[in-house]
Amino acid sequence: MKAYELVLERLEADIAEQRLRLGDRLPGERALAERLGVSRTSVREAIRVLEVMGVVRTAAGSGPDAGAVIVAEPRAPLTSTLRLHLATSHLPIADIVQTRILLESWAVREASVRADSAAVAEAGSLLDAMDDAGLEPERFHVLDAEFHVALTALAGNVLVSTVMASLREAIHGYVMAAVPQLDDWDSVAKSLRHEHRAVLEAVKRGDGDTAASLVARHIEGFYSAARLE
Amino acid sequence: MKAYELVLERLEADIAEQRLRLGDRLPGERALAERLGVSRTSVREAIRVLEVMGVVRTAAGSGPDAGAVIVAEPRAPLTSTLRLHLATSHLPIADIVQTRILLESWAVREASVRADSAAVAEAGSLLDAMDDAGLEPERFHVLDAEFHVALTALAGNVLVSTVMASLREAIHGYVMAAVPQLDDWDSVAKSLRHEHRAVLEAVKRGDGDTAASLVARHIEGFYSAARLE
Repeated sequence: MKAYELVLERLEADIAEQRLRLGDRLPGERALAERLGVSRTSVREAIRVLEVMGVVRTAAGSGPDAGAVIVAEPRAPLTSTLRLHLATSHLPIADIVQTRILLESWAVREASVRADSAAVAEAGSLLDAMDDAGLEPERFHVLDAEFHVALTALAGNVLVSTVMASLREAIHGYVMAAVPQLDDWDSVAKSLRHEHRAVLEAVKRGDGDTAASLVARHIEGFYSAARLE
Repeated sequence: MKAYELVLERLEADIAEQRLRLGDRLPGERALAERLGVSRTSVREAIRVLEVMGVVRTAAGSGPDAGAVIVAEPRAPLTSTLRLHLATSHLPIADIVQTRILLESWAVREASVRADSAAVAEAGSLLDAMDDAGLEPERFHVLDAEFHVALTALAGNVLVSTVMASLREAIHGYVMAAVPQLDDWDSVAKSLRHEHRAVLEAVKRGDGDTAASLVARHIEGFYSAARLE
């Protein structure tokens, strides 16, 4: 085991056994290095790894706010990990499409039963913002991604919405690269707007079957129009 | 932006744009530090992060095999990230149960249609190994987890099986901690064996509906018996 892996293992055990809790500050680099019998470099490497995983946040300097604090931000690391692996391992686009359909059609079904009207209204306000005819494709797609994440979050499952949010962020680059492949952006945007409204309306009236089949067709249609299949 | 984040960003761009591909070796620490105008410490931190993400593998020493090589091992980082976040953010068990039911019932449905008989036989051989009456609960659960991962993999979606494998590994500790809560291990093990066989039989005969409802009931039953709900 490499020295930084030993540090990671010990800190993970401290977190799992609640000796370190959310909001706690880690001991300083020097103290940790002495306690674990490793170099300060190894401690620093382990802390960087935890930082990228969203488990600690660090601030520069030496004041009372310096050092590493335990936080819980699971979304960012899943995103960067997925994005890097999309780049290296050629994860098939068909698998991404299938996974999105699985998660999103399940989520709208769930949302149709338990629909929280404030959350539904919030998702709807993203659609209002997308109605602006002068919107650049880039901005349109950022709102589009936010809408799909919000739609998935309506199901109220933290794990599913974290995976979905990470996935959407990870594929953002792919989606944007595909926009120039679209034959007629204005008419594509018009269809997307219409489809989003129809899904949300079905959720609102508690019609899970319709919401699920509309969202599946919407996802398939976009990938197919963007020739991402 | 911190110096190691700059290094990460540059290496990620190199990977995304195929200037660095699977199997390629990264430039040495010193060369990278000079090219990017940062310290060797920052380069080393970034490489550790990529290593934990499963994007590079490093070997110690200074021979021809030394240094960091681009690999693609997405499972390990998702596992350790999920595990740490289970520990810090108190992800509700109910959300894990629901996510497992979603992924696994979808997967057995898919598998029932496309069942690859070699892969089905391999999943079956894990069940044979679990029939050993003298098996310790720990070993039983390792095989159990492997069976569920193999079952999910039958659907042939890399992304879904990576998420599922990471999730199973991440919750292994939770599941093991729950075993002492089981009233009668022998009878629980007997039921689990029976349920696993029934799911796999349904997949084999192409009965997706039955496979999906059996696997859902099996997952719910275990969490409920282990009082993990």
